[in-house]
Amino acid sequence: MKTALFPGAFDPVTNGHIDLMKRALTLFDRLIVAVGHRGEKGVLFSVEERMEMLRESTRTLGAVEVTHFDGLLVDFARSLGADVVIRGLRFVSDFEYEFQMALMNRKLSGSFETVFLMPSEKYSYLNSTVVKEIARLGGSVSKFVPPAVEEKLKRTLGKRAGE
Amino acid sequence: MKTALFPGAFDPVTNGHIDLMKRALTLFDRLIVAVGHRGEKGVLFSVEERMEMLRESTRTLGAVEVTHFDGLLVDFARSLGADVVIRGLRFVSDFEYEFQMALMNRKLSGSFETVFLMPSEKYSYLNSTVVKEIARLGGSVSKFVPPAVEEKLKRTLGKRAGE
Amino acid sequence: MKTALFPGAFDPVTNGHIDLMKRALTLFDRLIVAVGHRGEKGVLFSVEERMEMLRESTRTLGAVEVTHFDGLLVDFARSLGADVVIRGLRFVSDFEYEFQMALMNRKLSGSFETVFLMPSEKYSYLNSTVVKEIARLGGSVSKFVPPAVEEKLKRTLGKRAGE
Amino acid sequence: MKTALFPGAFDPVTNGHIDLMKRALTLFDRLIVAVGHRGEKGVLFSVEERMEMLRESTRTLGAVEVTHFDGLLVDFARSLGADVVIRGLRFVSDFEYEFQMALMNRKLSGSFETVFLMPSEKYSYLNSTVVKEIARLGGSVSKFVPPAVEEKLKRTLGKRAGE
Amino acid sequence: MKTALFPGAFDPVTNGHIDLMKRALTLFDRLIVAVGHRGEKGVLFSVEERMEMLRESTRTLGAVEVTHFDGLLVDFARSLGADVVIRGLRFVSDFEYEFQMALMNRKLSGSFETVFLMPSEKYSYLNSTVVKEIARLGGSVSKFVPPAVEEKLKRTLGKRAGE
Amino acid sequence: MKTALFPGAFDPVTNGHIDLMKRALTLFDRLIVAVGHRGEKGVLFSVEERMEMLRESTRTLGAVEVTHFDGLLVDFARSLGADVVIRGLRFVSDFEYEFQMALMNRKLSGSFETVFLMPSEKYSYLNSTVVKEIARLGGSVSKFVPPAVEEKLKRTLGKRAGE
Repeated sequence: MKTALFPGAFDPVTNGHIDLMKRALTLFDRLIVAVGHRGEKGVLFSVEERMEMLRESTRTLGAVEVTHFDGLLVDFARSLGADVVIRGLRFVSDFEYEFQMALMNRKLSGSFETVFLMPSEKYSYLNSTVVKEIARLGGSVSKFVPPAVEEKLKRTLGKRAGE
Repeated sequence: MKTALFPGAFDPVTNGHIDLMKRALTLFDRLIVAVGHRGEKGVLFSVEERMEMLRESTRTLGAVEVTHFDGLLVDFARSLGADVVIRGLRFVSDFEYEFQMALMNRKLSGSFETVFLMPSEKYSYLNSTVVKEIARLGGSVSKFVPPAVEEKLKRTLGKRAGE
Repeated sequence: MKTALFPGAFDPVTNGHIDLMKRALTLFDRLIVAVGHRGEKGVLFSVEERMEMLRESTRTLGAVEVTHFDGLLVDFARSLGADVVIRGLRFVSDFEYEFQMALMNRKLSGSFETVFLMPSEKYSYLNSTVVKEIARLGGSVSKFVPPAVEEKLKRTLGKRAGE
Repeated sequence: MKTALFPGAFDPVTNGHIDLMKRALTLFDRLIVAVGHRGEKGVLFSVEERMEMLRESTRTLGAVEVTHFDGLLVDFARSLGADVVIRGLRFVSDFEYEFQMALMNRKLSGSFETVFLMPSEKYSYLNSTVVKEIARLGGSVSKFVPPAVEEKLKRTLGKRAGE
Repeated sequence: MKTALFPGAFDPVTNGHIDLMKRALTLFDRLIVAVGHRGEKGVLFSVEERMEMLRESTRTLGAVEVTHFDGLLVDFARSLGADVVIRGLRFVSDFEYEFQMALMNRKLSGSFETVFLMPSEKYSYLNSTVVKEIARLGGSVSKFVPPAVEEKLKRTLGKRAGE
Repeated sequence: MKTALFPGAFDPVTNGHIDLMKRALTLFDRLIVAVGHRGEKGVLFSVEERMEMLRESTRTLGAVEVTHFDGLLVDFARSLGADVVIRGLRFVSDFEYEFQMALMNRKLSGSFETVFLMPSEKYSYLNSTVVKEIARLGGSVSKFVPPAVEEKLKRTLGKRAGE
């Protein structure tokens, strides 16, 4: 039985992330999706909110567990007994950053293999930053995120605008 | 008659931008240059100042109109009836970012086609951030920006230094 | 009135090429599609066959003319009075090659501007070489090329296999 | 139980390929290494020789099966019931080519997921073409290929030189 | 006699920087390592601390001088009589940024040639930002930085955590 | 005293190569330009012709020696006592290929350091293949190659056309 870990900021989860999770589930028995947080600035949602959106959006996917971590990825993966870390690749810039991270993790004695998956080309343009920008400017994000995230974005940005 | 829209931060306009405008004017009948602003931090010049520098620098180019926008590009382009959005490509990193944006704009039902032009290789190294950095450090930017911008940079950075 | 030239090998034309032609037609009044040939080896179809497939595949597109050339692109474009040369960009490797060619054409005193368009992301994986390879191995290419090309590929490769 | 397929030319297998196989074996239960051949020119070794070198080089790795195929990868993978196709990524140029292939395979209704693995950075410079070139010029390839391949290269190139 | 200048933020110096310095010393007679500072935010160490770590880490390398500068690189290099500016290249993203800088420096009448060196592939994943991140999260950085830097990182981050 | 080696096919030498040689001569005391040949197909000029064009084009540059080699670069460089191998970088594709070669040469115990220089952006589009193509199609190459090469191209291609 193989356990895969999919770490990320998920601020918020997009349809591109969901696409990758579905692909990972066809390959590995257990998928742990983990919100990484290190006191970073510029996030829109709290760790709790991000986990809540992930839980609602992955309910129908099957064997997905949602959690969070705040230390080194290599330590967290070892504590979970993860065999695999899942990363998505869409662009050359993704590619170089991800390879740098994967090499660094090997040097830090990571006990896992990094596996790169390619999302559907339908999602190659998607990322959380652009989704938040569009929602802030009043555009519809219904094609880009799960329904629970769309609603949460509206409530959150509406409340802020109303403050 | 075709209308082209050239959106950007233009903080400030450089000779590279002017080169692209001249190329666009050989292809399309009307060119609207629009300063995008979304309450971003880190800009040096106000929207009004950026538009003023654009107006002075494009006076001799012919059919160029200068304006600004603060919402979604797709909405603004539709309101103008723009057929084309002009973007410059110089580097691989430009290329990936611009393609991501162009794909996203298509998903947002953009009514325009994105057209990529290549500036003269003389300007392949130029961007507004580097120009500001050089001016701040006391270097001459006369090769990089129109005269009106050079003068404005001197006055603005001089005043700040003198505060 | 602006005339656009779309040069290529078109051995054979794919749905990705057709997508670019449709985009070019929304921007320019007249589109000339030109099969370039320089006695190259490794082509599957003769210039006549490639032009015939182009004609059949563009019949419903409107103002498309199909022709061929065998000298320098800059000379051919000048002889046509073309204002624009259309090129498609999908990948970083496209990007670098196309920029090298566009810069070289400017040095050769090209009288035109090179305009880069982005095909639908649905076609980002497509090229003529891969299409021929799939057809040769017996796969279906109906999603990748116009019907006239699919049929021609079958007949051509069937005849060769039967020789 | 998951079956992974690692297709390639393997002309000849290098230490970089072996590194990828070891990584794949930690993730999947069964690994099928398949020599693809389509009557290509420029190969040094016959399909039989390439399979023989693969068998000798993977003897100690465990659950590796060596085979060959000459049609479409999607058809071959389906006939094997492969869940996964393994590809190595080292460079941006790898990345773009592999993504193009993976997208094309999805369009051809591939029944598998493509999984990208990263070899050790020790092998990032290695490929079969360079190895053959060095052996041809009389250099030592003992750091680059398994012992069985080194010997085979010597005998093959020696015989040719002696002809 | 040739003088080489190696400018950088060095916040802090890593083993990758040291590797480049050793390579530069085999080529040029004199190597000046210069900490650039422009009131930037987000640095961990003061200019004095960065210079101190550089001095301790380069003590055994031979003809290395450590200094700092805060104006334009072209002016600083001219004041030193530097013939060469050394830059390391590891990734495509490095490459584009460095080329943009090198071209800009030529336009600013730089009196030097920019020379690009490639660090050992063992250090291709290393940068100062990642090293600081790992140290902050409690990981060991002993493989990534000289001993003096490792100790300094511990003291600095420990003190901050204890504040 | 430092000896630099600039290896290449030089089929034929272009103004871009000459630009790199001038830069190398400001950095190193002695520059050896070496035509590499390995019985490759597709070259236009013989090794003797390529060396002759190099000699004529570098006559006024000073300390340039022209030679040739047909084995491994690492062996040839060692036999010359070269400290440095010079390579030009213009594009991302150059970059990846050159890095692969430089890493391989280190593994082959190369006794030299590879130094990458950037030609003037005026030559970023230039390569020998494109120059030959233009000359073949009757275009003028006077902006791209030294006068001796232009004349040689005319005579060679004229003679072939007249055969």
